Amino acid sequence: MNSLKIGISPSLFADTDDTPLKVLKDTGVEIIENPYKRRLSEEEAIIFLKDLDGLIAGLEPLNKNVLLTAHRLKAIARVGIGTDNVDLAYAKEKGIKISNTPDGPTEAVAEMTLSVLLTINRMLVFSNNLMHHGEWKKTIGTSIKGQKILLIGYGRIGSTVSELLTKFGADVYVFDPFIKKSQQIFKEKLVSLEEGLKLADVISLHASGRDLILGQKEFGLMKEGVILLNSARGELVDEFALLDAIQKGKIGSVWFDVFWKEPYTGELTKYENVILTPHIGTYTKQCRLSMEMEAVNNILHDLDLK
Amino acid sequence: MNSLKIGISPSLFADTDDTPLKVLKDTGVEIIENPYKRRLSEEEAIIFLKDLDGLIAGLEPLNKNVLLTAHRLKAIARVGIGTDNVDLAYAKEKGIKISNTPDGPTEAVAEMTLSVLLTINRMLVFSNNLMHHGEWKKTIGTSIKGQKILLIGYGRIGSTVSELLTKFGADVYVFDPFIKKSQQIFKEKLVSLEEGLKLADVISLHASGRDLILGQKEFGLMKEGVILLNSARGELVDEFALLDAIQKGKIGSVWFDVFWKEPYTGELTKYENVILTPHIGTYTKQCRLSMEMEAVNNILHDLDLK
Repeated sequence: MNSLKIGISPSLFADTDDTPLKVLKDTGVEIIENPYKRRLSEEEAIIFLKDLDGLIAGLEPLNKNVLLTAHRLKAIARVGIGTDNVDLAYAKEKGIKISNTPDGPTEAVAEMTLSVLLTINRMLVFSNNLMHHGEWKKTIGTSIKGQKILLIGYGRIGSTVSELLTKFGADVYVFDPFIKKSQQIFKEKLVSLEEGLKLADVISLHASGRDLILGQKEFGLMKEGVILLNSARGELVDEFALLDAIQKGKIGSVWFDVFWKEPYTGELTKYENVILTPHIGTYTKQCRLSMEMEAVNNILHDLDLK
Repeated sequence: MNSLKIGISPSLFADTDDTPLKVLKDTGVEIIENPYKRRLSEEEAIIFLKDLDGLIAGLEPLNKNVLLTAHRLKAIARVGIGTDNVDLAYAKEKGIKISNTPDGPTEAVAEMTLSVLLTINRMLVFSNNLMHHGEWKKTIGTSIKGQKILLIGYGRIGSTVSELLTKFGADVYVFDPFIKKSQQIFKEKLVSLEEGLKLADVISLHASGRDLILGQKEFGLMKEGVILLNSARGELVDEFALLDAIQKGKIGSVWFDVFWKEPYTGELTKYENVILTPHIGTYTKQCRLSMEMEAVNNILHDLDLK
């Protein structure tokens, strides 16, 4: 036994497989679970973190306000890639170790992106709804074969998406400002953002960071009927420019799994050609288990428990 | 010019690309289109075929009754694989040439199968419906990776499905009575139907013919929560055994694109865990165009017009 307390904030942690919880418990730590079963607010996070030695973290705000009073906190282990909910500089100053699980989400998010593109191409949601209302109406969809697909961002997830798309015969283009043409080692065509937006039938966002990429000007460059997929971050797209483009009929179909504010219940929910999912790109049994085990190992390592 | 008449019965022929119609017209034949824009009944087919020299055919009944009075008919070109709507023996007796387009549908049907499996695995229809009703509820889905998938039938479509599934990391099993273990040249595991039904997380039908494969006994062998995909033929599955298994909660999810009677508006439409599409496995722009062009070339060849 030891007297360490570890908090777990992701609401569905160990939901379909309790191995990660068991591994934690076997070390003798005390486990404190998120009582709200949803993302903590700043105020809630301040109270939750007060007596913790370690935190297995979701996307709750872990800014200076929150970390200020977390006097015992020695380690934060994010279940996921992004750490921009954490004030990394201040955490470092306080000697809090930060870890993440960079490889875990790749396959699940890439698979989800393919899943939604296939669904949109074949009008599956639409056809299924009609059939459930007793209507038999054949519609002609599109194959991925020969579709011009622009991937914005070619990191772990972008390159995995490209690999799957290629199996289906897509024509893949990449815009990634961190890759120079001279360094290009992959077979996809490297384009400027403007070139890519002008030619793409489908645009899929896989960029990191929070900088705006698609604003009014960029929507202006896109083809009529374009399909836009966003499994990366809401902030990469200007919400009002997007709604404007949808209302003007410029956009064929949209998928957003990530939003400007979550939980999202805004304007996009009103449009039938918008597919929405509640930030579940990484939510597969296999992916959750592998990310959770990685986070557990990280926190145990950082608290010198293994 | 010539005085030949060619009838076109598939309701969406040349719908998104009119090249096949143009090629036909350029030969100087007279084109008669299906006035009902849906599948012809036997009575309608008798009248439609009366003065035709050639028929570009869908799935309307082309039995002895219909062919009996089609005195000028010299050729039938099916847009698609199946020809069991045609009385082939009687057609041969009357000297009517029959062709089909065996390669056309493969990619589109295989892609649709993947599309639906991914959608079911990630609960996309469910999540999207909730979001459109203002509900943000995360659910944990499943990756194809490691799923045990039984393919019943390993012809053109079955083997293409297997190839795509393998890219996603599935564990593919094959039951096909026409393949003997000693002949096996592929890497998937060949199993008996009973073995396959017992181990499968997902069962996908890609058999030809109309013989019943899944009846009450077979449903009894399946795992709880199994996913059943049918893009082949309604008749391969016993409708009442299926409904019984759904009602008993044995089945996790079902997709049917093909039915015992089409248009289908029956019992299956009542269940949320049943995904239904109106026989559109081959309905992509690319696939329709390639099948239609193949059928046009077949009929022109068989009428000695090229």
